Amino acid sequence: MPRMIDRKKRGGCLRDEEWRWIVESFTAGLVPDYQMSALLMAVWFRGLSDTETSALTRAMMESGSCLDFSTLARPTVDKHSTGGVGDKVSLALAPCAAAAGLAVPMVSGRGLGHTGGTLDKLAAIPGFRTVLTMTQFMDQVRSLGCAITGQSDDMAPADGMIYALRDVTATVDCIPLIAASIMSKKLAAGPQGIVFDVKVGRGAFMQNLDDARRLAGVLIRIGAAAGRRCTALLTNMDQPLGVAVGNALEVSEIIDLLRGGGPEDLKEITVALVAEMLITGGLIAEAGEAWVAATHALEGPALQCFSDMVEAQGGQTAIIADASLLPSAPVIRTLEAPRGGFVAQLDARVIGEIAVVLGAGRSTVHDAVDPRVGIMCDVKVGSRIGAGEALLTVHAADEASAERALRELYEAVSIVDQPVPAPPLILERIDETGATPWVHPMSVAHG
Amino acid sequence: MPRMIDRKKRGGCLRDEEWRWIVESFTAGLVPDYQMSALLMAVWFRGLSDTETSALTRAMMESGSCLDFSTLARPTVDKHSTGGVGDKVSLALAPCAAAAGLAVPMVSGRGLGHTGGTLDKLAAIPGFRTVLTMTQFMDQVRSLGCAITGQSDDMAPADGMIYALRDVTATVDCIPLIAASIMSKKLAAGPQGIVFDVKVGRGAFMQNLDDARRLAGVLIRIGAAAGRRCTALLTNMDQPLGVAVGNALEVSEIIDLLRGGGPEDLKEITVALVAEMLITGGLIAEAGEAWVAATHALEGPALQCFSDMVEAQGGQTAIIADASLLPSAPVIRTLEAPRGGFVAQLDARVIGEIAVVLGAGRSTVHDAVDPRVGIMCDVKVGSRIGAGEALLTVHAADEASAERALRELYEAVSIVDQPVPAPPLILERIDETGATPWVHPMSVAHG
Repeated sequence: MPRMIDRKKRGGCLRDEEWRWIVESFTAGLVPDYQMSALLMAVWFRGLSDTETSALTRAMMESGSCLDFSTLARPTVDKHSTGGVGDKVSLALAPCAAAAGLAVPMVSGRGLGHTGGTLDKLAAIPGFRTVLTMTQFMDQVRSLGCAITGQSDDMAPADGMIYALRDVTATVDCIPLIAASIMSKKLAAGPQGIVFDVKVGRGAFMQNLDDARRLAGVLIRIGAAAGRRCTALLTNMDQPLGVAVGNALEVSEIIDLLRGGGPEDLKEITVALVAEMLITGGLIAEAGEAWVAATHALEGPALQCFSDMVEAQGGQTAIIADASLLPSAPVIRTLEAPRGGFVAQLDARVIGEIAVVLGAGRSTVHDAVDPRVGIMCDVKVGSRIGAGEALLTVHAADEASAERALRELYEAVSIVDQPVPAPPLILERIDETGATPWVHPMSVAHG
Repeated sequence: MPRMIDRKKRGGCLRDEEWRWIVESFTAGLVPDYQMSALLMAVWFRGLSDTETSALTRAMMESGSCLDFSTLARPTVDKHSTGGVGDKVSLALAPCAAAAGLAVPMVSGRGLGHTGGTLDKLAAIPGFRTVLTMTQFMDQVRSLGCAITGQSDDMAPADGMIYALRDVTATVDCIPLIAASIMSKKLAAGPQGIVFDVKVGRGAFMQNLDDARRLAGVLIRIGAAAGRRCTALLTNMDQPLGVAVGNALEVSEIIDLLRGGGPEDLKEITVALVAEMLITGGLIAEAGEAWVAATHALEGPALQCFSDMVEAQGGQTAIIADASLLPSAPVIRTLEAPRGGFVAQLDARVIGEIAVVLGAGRSTVHDAVDPRVGIMCDVKVGSRIGAGEALLTVHAADEASAERALRELYEAVSIVDQPVPAPPLILERIDETGATPWVHPMSVAHG
């Protein structure tokens, strides 16, 4: 092990069988934490080649059990978001893609830090089981076309052990290690294709376009090396996605979306990702047709599929007809605009961090989440606003935390005199051939 | 700790109190190995400022007890060599410097890898105690003017713990960490001044002059920051120093030296270092005078002082009059020159490594050392040699290891047709004002 650390430290590469040996030995307790953390720090400085990243990913994946959907008639395609504020897309996307003919075996995570987690949002639905056994998960994917579950202990356990070490040794912020961690779990769930939503901006882990492109590229190449078809959309995360931030609030927004309403940006990104999934799964070849099919699924059968999924996973389906059955906060307070003008910024990171303090997310893995609390955006970047009108609404567990949130939320908003254009939502599309600027499929005929 | 690791990882500096906290917490078991090893790897990449190196050194030194010789009438000056093959200088230097009026409290190490350790050489003297209590050590320095002992458990224990971690995480080869490790022990022994013999070349840890200069500079600046006067000589370690490599063989060579014989290079470097010590200790100001005083001490009273030291530390003094009382190897074999010519190379690293295999040194800290075995150089670089004449003589524990050593020793020697000049032995002198090319003090009048 010291020789392998030394080689990496000097900028060399480790071979496939060396990465396998390292992951196996570390998982078995034969390579001690202190050697692994030294290696991870050397990787932080030197990076990993694509071959090394794939080898590490495979070794981590093979540390646990892997699912096999090859006998399924439908193509299996998953989606992965790198995490953002108000990103509830998966809740509508999985049933929508299933309604459009795909099978979606989605293994999701809990939230940590300022970004929310899909499982925490689903857990706001009374009765919903976020942990399925492997058999339950596979059966539901076969029967309904979609299921969302948390990572079980025997899926890529090496990833959990390595992540825990990275978390306390300042080696989390490393693109190849981030990519290997994501892909080891995603590949273990067995999809034939994966569409990535790589978030970029204030509220995302990737703060600039270059880093987001690099991460997307590594994810796609790892997938390709494992024989999976992968594409990525790079999407804006400077302001929250949609208008709701907080678990029950976001479920309510998803139900609005599935009933034909919901914010435009949320609808656009959901349709774009489902359309990508349909192309990735080989069901539709042309982008415009895929967009139309995704839109029809979202506006039509997705709602029923969502209801079936909630029912299958033990949740109360009554919340779909009556969102007031969802847990709601006792204290609701509004942040008013101190002046009139145009909203120039709605800082997703600040809003996400304040939502965590309200109880909507976790600062450490041991924190409990309050499904009721959160923040509603009454405006978006570009909105015209009059003095005294509502900017943001805080849903809090008590007066004190509401007051504190309101005080701190001023930092998140800026209002200017001149009109501000709504920022672009989808920035680029990336596939194995490289990155191209995003062109709306329905505008191609005119472009 | 993760924040401090992150700061260092990004190229920032840690403050004095942060280094103290890290060393104290690590020594107390509150900072785990895996965080310390990640920090050490970040230091490998980012280095340490002089201020940081001094703070780390001080924290490591203060993790244990420190000696105080301030009540001693003589100036206390130590010497430290960064390690080389055949480097037995300390054995003659300590009594020589003591005979010239200094006090030499020398805390020395065991050998590891291809370089020998002073303690292993002394242990070849029957009965010699290489571990003194602090009281015995201080008493002997007071009464005789010199003592050589191993590091006790309560001297800079943090250094031992950090070194053990560096050894298994590929973070040994890092100049500021090497310097802090050396200085934490040297400063704890309490000398007012230290002269460094920084070895450079094939058989040294520093393979090139730039690295050797950097290490010497850091060592001198740490010493200055701790209020000690330090200078360094950079000396050649492409070929072994002197002619003996191996513990009893080197003791025998030291006795020759103290009796007025011995190889020229060994004598030159011993005198040069003792002269530096006399200047550093403030006993003599002028380089030529110091050289003369060191030579007189070496040719005169040093032998009696060596004998007194051996006696005080329990060793048989009879070996001084009769070196055949030292342990000797049962098998002695000669490597003959395959052709005539001039010796162009006598690779110190290869010879050192083969000596370790013969049993003269350790591959791991747990290996035992055989005092009898080693290699004698019958030639030096520049020697004229006839075909069939002796190049090297192997002293081995058995026939098989002798044969193996002879086969491998061919690699260490190269013979050419053209005359080869003897390489310069002392390359540069470095003090707080910088590096200057070495000028022999006795040649100044002519230069």
